[in-house]
Parts: sequence; C-alpha cells; structure tokens
Amino acid sequence: MSDEFVTIQSVGRKGLLDQLKDLNGKVSPATIKGIGDDAAVLKGRDGNYTLLSSDTFVEGVDFDPSYTPFTHFGYKIITASISDIYAMNGKPTSVLVNMALPNRLSVKMVKDMYLGIDQACKKHEVELVGGDLTGNHNNAVISVTTYGEVSEEKITYRKGAKLGDAICVTGDLGGAIAGLRILMREKKFWEQHGDQAVQPDLEDYKYVVQRQLMPEARKDLIEALEEQGIVPSTMIDITQSLINEVTEICDAADLGAYLYQAALPIAIETRHVADEMEEDVDKYALFGGEELELLFTLTEEQVELFAEHFKDFAVIGRITPKEEGLMMQTAEGDVLSFDDLS
Amino acid sequence: MSDEFVTIQSVGRKGLLDQLKDLNGKVSPATIKGIGDDAAVLKGRDGNYTLLSSDTFVEGVDFDPSYTPFTHFGYKIITASISDIYAMNGKPTSVLVNMALPNRLSVKMVKDMYLGIDQACKKHEVELVGGDLTGNHNNAVISVTTYGEVSEEKITYRKGAKLGDAICVTGDLGGAIAGLRILMREKKFWEQHGDQAVQPDLEDYKYVVQRQLMPEARKDLIEALEEQGIVPSTMIDITQSLINEVTEICDAADLGAYLYQAALPIAIETRHVADEMEEDVDKYALFGGEELELLFTLTEEQVELFAEHFKDFAVIGRITPKEEGLMMQTAEGDVLSFDDLS
Repeated sequence: MSDEFVTIQSVGRKGLLDQLKDLNGKVSPATIKGIGDDAAVLKGRDGNYTLLSSDTFVEGVDFDPSYTPFTHFGYKIITASISDIYAMNGKPTSVLVNMALPNRLSVKMVKDMYLGIDQACKKHEVELVGGDLTGNHNNAVISVTTYGEVSEEKITYRKGAKLGDAICVTGDLGGAIAGLRILMREKKFWEQHGDQAVQPDLEDYKYVVQRQLMPEARKDLIEALEEQGIVPSTMIDITQSLINEVTEICDAADLGAYLYQAALPIAIETRHVADEMEEDVDKYALFGGEELELLFTLTEEQVELFAEHFKDFAVIGRITPKEEGLMMQTAEGDVLSFDDLS
Repeated sequence: MSDEFVTIQSVGRKGLLDQLKDLNGKVSPATIKGIGDDAAVLKGRDGNYTLLSSDTFVEGVDFDPSYTPFTHFGYKIITASISDIYAMNGKPTSVLVNMALPNRLSVKMVKDMYLGIDQACKKHEVELVGGDLTGNHNNAVISVTTYGEVSEEKITYRKGAKLGDAICVTGDLGGAIAGLRILMREKKFWEQHGDQAVQPDLEDYKYVVQRQLMPEARKDLIEALEEQGIVPSTMIDITQSLINEVTEICDAADLGAYLYQAALPIAIETRHVADEMEEDVDKYALFGGEELELLFTLTEEQVELFAEHFKDFAVIGRITPKEEGLMMQTAEGDVLSFDDLS
C-alpha cells in the first residue's frame, strides 16, 4: 500500500479532495448539481430546485471562544451557512444544527449559542428544524445544514460568467480580517497582562469587530435582484477571499478577469485598523476571508438598471478572455497578475 | 446570572435540550414537523414531503478507531443516518457528509472512509451531494445530513400507535452490543499483550462484529411495506435501545405496552457471546443500542397479511392502555414493569 502513511497534512485539503472526487455513491437523475458549488441542487417541489448545503465550525480552528461571545457565534454559524443558499440566488427556509460539545461548557454558553441561532433564523425567516446534540472530549464541533429553494430560471451557479460582464461585490471588503486583527491583539494583551489589566475598549473598533463576529448574509441583494427581475450570470459568497472567489468563477467559466484596485470598496473603519497595524488595507480587501459579501457578475446594462434601485454594491472589474489571465490594475496604473499580488 | 456556571455535564443532555426547545427561529408554515422525530418533515415536491435528518459521530465517543476499520465506519455513518429516513417510511435520496479531521489521519484512512460511504450509498441508491472537509485538532468529528422523500399518505411518525396494535421489530436484537463486547475484549487483550501476542481470531464472532461495525439499514422493510400497501401506525429505528424506543412511541401516543420476553428475536451468535461473557442475553436485546432495526406497529390483520410476504420480523408485544403502563411478561410468566428491568 504505497499511500498507507501519507498524512492529510502532507497532501493538503485540496490534494485529499482530488482523491475522493469519484466516491459519490449512486449518481441520481434527480441531482441537478452535486459537489462543487456553494450548495447541492436537487429537483424540488413545483418545478423549483432544492438547495442543500452544510458547513462545519471547529473550536480552535474556525472560532476562538476566548474572544467570541457565544450568541455572536450562534448568529454567525447561521449567516455563514445560509449565505451559501443566497449565493445560488435562493431563499433559505430551514436549518439543522449538529453540535458535538465538551461537558465543560456551561448551559448558559449553549443557550447563548442557541439565542444567536434563533436571532439569525428570525432575521432571515429560517426555521431550525432539526439536528442533534452529542458530546465531544476536547472542543466544540458544530455542523450546520441549510435547506433552501430557488426557481430554475433564477439559479446562479459558480459557472456562468460571460465575457465583458461587470464584476460586482456587495458592501465593503476587508472588515472581517480587520476585526480579527483587533481581537487577536486584545487577546495577546490580555494574555500578557492578565485579569489585573484594564480591559481594552473595543468601542472604537465596533464596526470591524462586528464584521468578524457577526457577519451578515446578504439577503437584501437577493431580494433586490428579484424585485428588478435581474439574474446575475454567476454568484458566489466571499468566504476564502476576494482573490480566491474571482479565481473560482473565472476558472469555472474558462475566462479571465481584470480588477481595478481603486474600485475596491473599503470602509473607513477598516482603513483605520490597517493604518494602526501598519498594514496594507488592500491586502485585507483582496485576501481577507469570512466576508459573506456576494460577488456576482452582470452585463453593463444590468448594472445601470440595478444601480438605480440597489446602492450597496460596487463594480470592481470585468470579465476578460482567458488568455488575458487574472489581472489587477493598481491605483498607480500598474497591471499585476494575481500571482504577483500576495 | 444564576445559571452561569452550570455545566452541560450537571444537567445532562435531556436537561439541556429542555432549555433549548423554544429557540427554533422563525416557525414556517412549510414545516410539517420540526424537532422531535427521526427526521424533520417539510413540504416537498409534487405533494410529497421532504425529510431531513442529521447525525454526528465523534471519535472516542461514537467510534473507536482502534477497532473500527475506516471502510466499515464510512459504511455505518451512512446506514445509521439513512435509517432515520426509513423510520419515517421514506426513501433517502441524498446525503451530505461534513468531516472535521485531525491532520494525523492518513489519506488512506480518509479514502477508506469514503469507500465505505460510497458502498453504502450505492447499496441504498443514495447520492453524496455535498459536505465539507475541515481540520480538527484532536479527534475526527463527522456529521451526516440525509435528505429523503415520502408521500403524505405513507409517512410514519413517532406518534401514531393505536390501542391493540401489534408491536413488531425487524431482524434480531442485541447483536450490535454483543459485537461491541467482543471488540472491547479483543482491544483489552491487545493492550495487555501488545504486538507480540497472536492476534485473536474474530472469525467465530463475524456475525455480531458485523452487526456492530457495519449495521444495515432496513430498506427491505420499507420496500415490502410499499409492495403490500401497508402503512404502520408508527415506526422508529432502534438507536438507543428497544426499551427506550418502545417508551418513545408509547409516550408519543399516550398509550402503554406489553412485551413478551420469549418473543424477542435473538440470533444464536448473540446468545453464544452472552454465554461466553456470562451475561443475560435478554439484556442485550432490551438495552443494546445501534441496532438500526425498525420497530413498528401494525393491526393484527396487517400482521397476518404482511407475514405472508415478509419474513424477517417478529411480533414482540402489543399496545395497551396508558394506565396499564410499560410491562414485560418474562419467559417464566412474571410480569415486570420497564422500571424494574434494568
């Protein structure tokens, strides 16, 4: 067995996924799209499609309870999960939450988590319909499954961007990573100075900390698109990073992209944090994850029409031929390949 | 905050669940049945209902890799999960598998797990349509979400047993716990004697070990019921124990039960293990978990009709008035309350 002692670590997540891609059980004609998009797409009711997606959140990997209030965390696992349904232009209706929790957690912590879940579900008109609670020895591991619907005419896949399309993004970028930087700094401060120290005031960083701890899923975009009868040619939510998701939609469509650095929407609060940390705020915007903003593509005509009705989005580039690659024009006018950016 | 330092351990799983039961987000009219049955029931396509269920499997709690081959484990997480759909008299069509895995696992282990998943999915005509792979520090935590369908006329809830119904169970009972006993003994032997020792031969215990490591979900019962046009008044799969599940269906229907100990179906292999361990095999049958056998109730007429076409089930008791409680007639003719059994 030549692969007997190859660890996951040595091949990485992507290497592992490549080796597993044909093990999908019985492929069913009722499956429109299986693994490989934000959500799985199944034949649903009344000619609609059913969307199914699931995500896992691991204590110590995806969240750190030392600076994450449990209500916020409960809220975030829901918004992060239903964001996958919005990214298909769908409407989430139900979630299942599976928690494997260590006994050391207090009942209040778990209740707080469910309060956050409840709050996010109410805001997004989603029902918690199931799941389970089991024990774990060391850390909390939580999986959320989201169920939603979308009509066949409205569904947006990762694939679908067209040559010449405008690349659009909701909200602003880099806020979540800016919030994380602040929280990590405070944690370090606290570890060094202990209980005796005056607790740092996070009030000045409220916006970015909120972006990290309680990011909002962009239901408003999906509703505005529906009202205007506009279907983007592709859509994806920003969970890894802007650069990663632009690469994803271009690879899926076999096309290139040309971004304008000057057009990246960045909040003033995010700029302040980057300044304070003496870091490049554009790096936050390009490489920061967990934004839950939606990246989507529209024709120029659609952009004009849509901008009259929905304000909270920016055009940050356009879709180009594959041969032109993945490029960004800097504020100074230089043109860099994505590969040169990091 | 009076409940600030109350740990999960001190209130237990049920105590915790009680405190969470109203935090379900926005309750939707499209939800037929939310938390509290084997699966959630949503309005589905073509007048059918959609079934959604999820389960978590924790290394060190729900499985021990020192005696669980990864292919078997992959198989079991699928059969255990789709068993919840069968328990609603439904047909599972899709699963999502979320794995949080420590880096120490080898690629082969993960591949083996997916081979088992693939095998179970093919056998049950289910497709793996999504999920994710993330890291965990210490142990593997795996969640499986199952999606299925059932028509409105055929769905069986936990609630529904009728006075006078026969209590039926598929297959035989106690095999999974017998298998666990053997595996635990072998593990202890191995820990005491190390690599130098001759590996114990498990061939004699093949049946019970298989019942523990690769239990089969009872698709055959669901198909036979459909062929005969029979819908049980209630159905549940045996995951905790026979006693627990009989109590569940009686509580849900506000009725009692009278079991016949002599009627408990027990395989000869299971009896041999109990003899060897000098334990009471009926205790295995009454209190053993993870059987994946289906417990269901039929009228006497349905039993007669059904028994002509489907052989692998036994009538183990009948549904009685609530006032008569939960009782079992022993082989010696004594009548004991469930409370006196353990």
